Amino acid sequence: MNFPKERLLDFCYHIFLRMGVSEQDAQLASKVLLEADLRGIDSHGLARLSGYIRLWEKGRINACAKPKIVRETLSTATVDAEAGLGLVAGPFAMQVAIDKAKTAGSGWVSVKNSNHFGIGAYHAMMALEHDMIGISMTNASPLVAPTHSKERMLGTNPMCFVFPSKKHQPIVIDMATSTAANGKLEIAQRLGKDLPSGWVQTKEGEPTIDANALKHGGSLLPLGSDKDHGSHKGYGLGAAVDILSAVLSGANFGPWVPPFVAFLEPDPNPVGEGIGHFFGAMRVDAFREKEDYFHSIDTWIERFKNAKAIKPDQPVIIPGEPEFESYQERIANGIPLNDLVVEDLKELALKFNYEL
Amino acid sequence: MNFPKERLLDFCYHIFLRMGVSEQDAQLASKVLLEADLRGIDSHGLARLSGYIRLWEKGRINACAKPKIVRETLSTATVDAEAGLGLVAGPFAMQVAIDKAKTAGSGWVSVKNSNHFGIGAYHAMMALEHDMIGISMTNASPLVAPTHSKERMLGTNPMCFVFPSKKHQPIVIDMATSTAANGKLEIAQRLGKDLPSGWVQTKEGEPTIDANALKHGGSLLPLGSDKDHGSHKGYGLGAAVDILSAVLSGANFGPWVPPFVAFLEPDPNPVGEGIGHFFGAMRVDAFREKEDYFHSIDTWIERFKNAKAIKPDQPVIIPGEPEFESYQERIANGIPLNDLVVEDLKELALKFNYEL
Repeated sequence: MNFPKERLLDFCYHIFLRMGVSEQDAQLASKVLLEADLRGIDSHGLARLSGYIRLWEKGRINACAKPKIVRETLSTATVDAEAGLGLVAGPFAMQVAIDKAKTAGSGWVSVKNSNHFGIGAYHAMMALEHDMIGISMTNASPLVAPTHSKERMLGTNPMCFVFPSKKHQPIVIDMATSTAANGKLEIAQRLGKDLPSGWVQTKEGEPTIDANALKHGGSLLPLGSDKDHGSHKGYGLGAAVDILSAVLSGANFGPWVPPFVAFLEPDPNPVGEGIGHFFGAMRVDAFREKEDYFHSIDTWIERFKNAKAIKPDQPVIIPGEPEFESYQERIANGIPLNDLVVEDLKELALKFNYEL
Repeated sequence: MNFPKERLLDFCYHIFLRMGVSEQDAQLASKVLLEADLRGIDSHGLARLSGYIRLWEKGRINACAKPKIVRETLSTATVDAEAGLGLVAGPFAMQVAIDKAKTAGSGWVSVKNSNHFGIGAYHAMMALEHDMIGISMTNASPLVAPTHSKERMLGTNPMCFVFPSKKHQPIVIDMATSTAANGKLEIAQRLGKDLPSGWVQTKEGEPTIDANALKHGGSLLPLGSDKDHGSHKGYGLGAAVDILSAVLSGANFGPWVPPFVAFLEPDPNPVGEGIGHFFGAMRVDAFREKEDYFHSIDTWIERFKNAKAIKPDQPVIIPGEPEFESYQERIANGIPLNDLVVEDLKELALKFNYEL
């Protein structure tokens, strides 16, 4: 089923209001969530709304939280999200990074005591209108086993780098540090399909192509899949995201990160508060004349778009292009939600007495 | 053959002196180069000395360069390396980042007009004694094809993240953004061995396990190897390194990065100056009480070291551990150089009239 953006935004807004979120925050949280659906990252949009609700019902999301700066220098800050929505704490912290960059050239913010922040690209892309480079990262519930391990120690810990451009769409690199994001597994499960090798392993650490391996105690593999193909690099990247987001801020890290699903209880002996994020903003004119930067980045984009393709009908993709195409298409034609998500939202509609 | 560190340092120092490098810079450049051999990154140490010499002979390395700041804000700077040794410009720029971080909380430096800077870890690890997180990146001669392409567009563009710790060795993540670094290919070539699949492709973009594929116009593959296994992520990371190092500083980027090997001429129509690097430093106490940070990072290390191993005799590795082991072993027992490298150095010894 296809839904116009406005209808879903309105629905989402009212559900957040019912949770007790302020009007301003409900508006922002809805916008961040919808941005995932618009950009084609279906796993991180409306599909997650009921998950947030269940965490709130368990008292694990504070609807009235007001994220605040608890420590700062000229170019850095630490933010306490007060156990609120990451969808609200994320834009708050990214704005702090942008404000710091205005005066100090760059701004860097580590966030503790937060929850899932939606897609990293929303936050990092806030830098674009200021002609800044944007960076965002977050840790997440443990699903990924380090190289040589069969234990879930890291989340899919995404990192996002956004570079402003002039003539073309900006470059948006937004990637999980695991070989495959969890959303791709869910699609294979729904279709009853096997996975490519190298995405997951069994509970015992054996390679498998079973899309349900995670349900049976298995784990995702770091980008690179195995040692021969550089899984220690994916593990290293996931570790860097974990440390910048949580060790630096005082959030939970590694296997202590509280699960997103409400039916799993967080560790009774946490090592920090909530989950952690990390944001960065750098003014391009802190490094170079703005026009020179824009000339170079546009040249970069044009040259890479025209790199020799292996198959003539499959040109090289500039990171972010597929998401921009999805965005334009879905703004025009609406957002397709699959039946399970629609069912889920209809239950919320009934429960909170607001029509979908 | 095994050589004591001091003997190689002395040799290297005198060769740089013969190039016309100042005493101070020759000392520094030798130290940076040797650090690679000590840490077991044999491809980036003494094995490259003759490569630097050949570039200097072609007039592509300026022995008398004095790297200088050409633009700065409170937390950022751009450095012009004046076509000098990256082995000298790297530590200079990293020191600028550290000095900025002392007053502004963080420091970020983009470098143009440089040459190969050795191993990223040397520079990023300069942050450790200041209780700072260190970051270093560099672009490099094009060898890697983006996903869907058969053209060499990016270098192996390494990124390095270093996190200080107290009870344990620091965490040092230092990785090429390609599936395999070029050094590993050279080893396979020397041994006449095939490669694992997913490291390289032929000139036509076909998968191959031929260790000589690069010599025949093939290319390295980005981390992830193919689209199914996330090669678009490795491509994205390589792109981020390229842009931060070169588009931001005004160095050459993408396929325009001048080749390290002197027998290949740089593009006659460059888009920037030399190659580019990017450095970062962040004070941990800009974000959190120092003791709290150190307590958490040590907990992180202990927990990951004890993650459940798949094979009991193959425990999880903390990034940087193998390099620290190599360092200690080689400080004690000397640096093993393979015959080709020894031959190479002996030629230099003869040419510059300084005994190895």
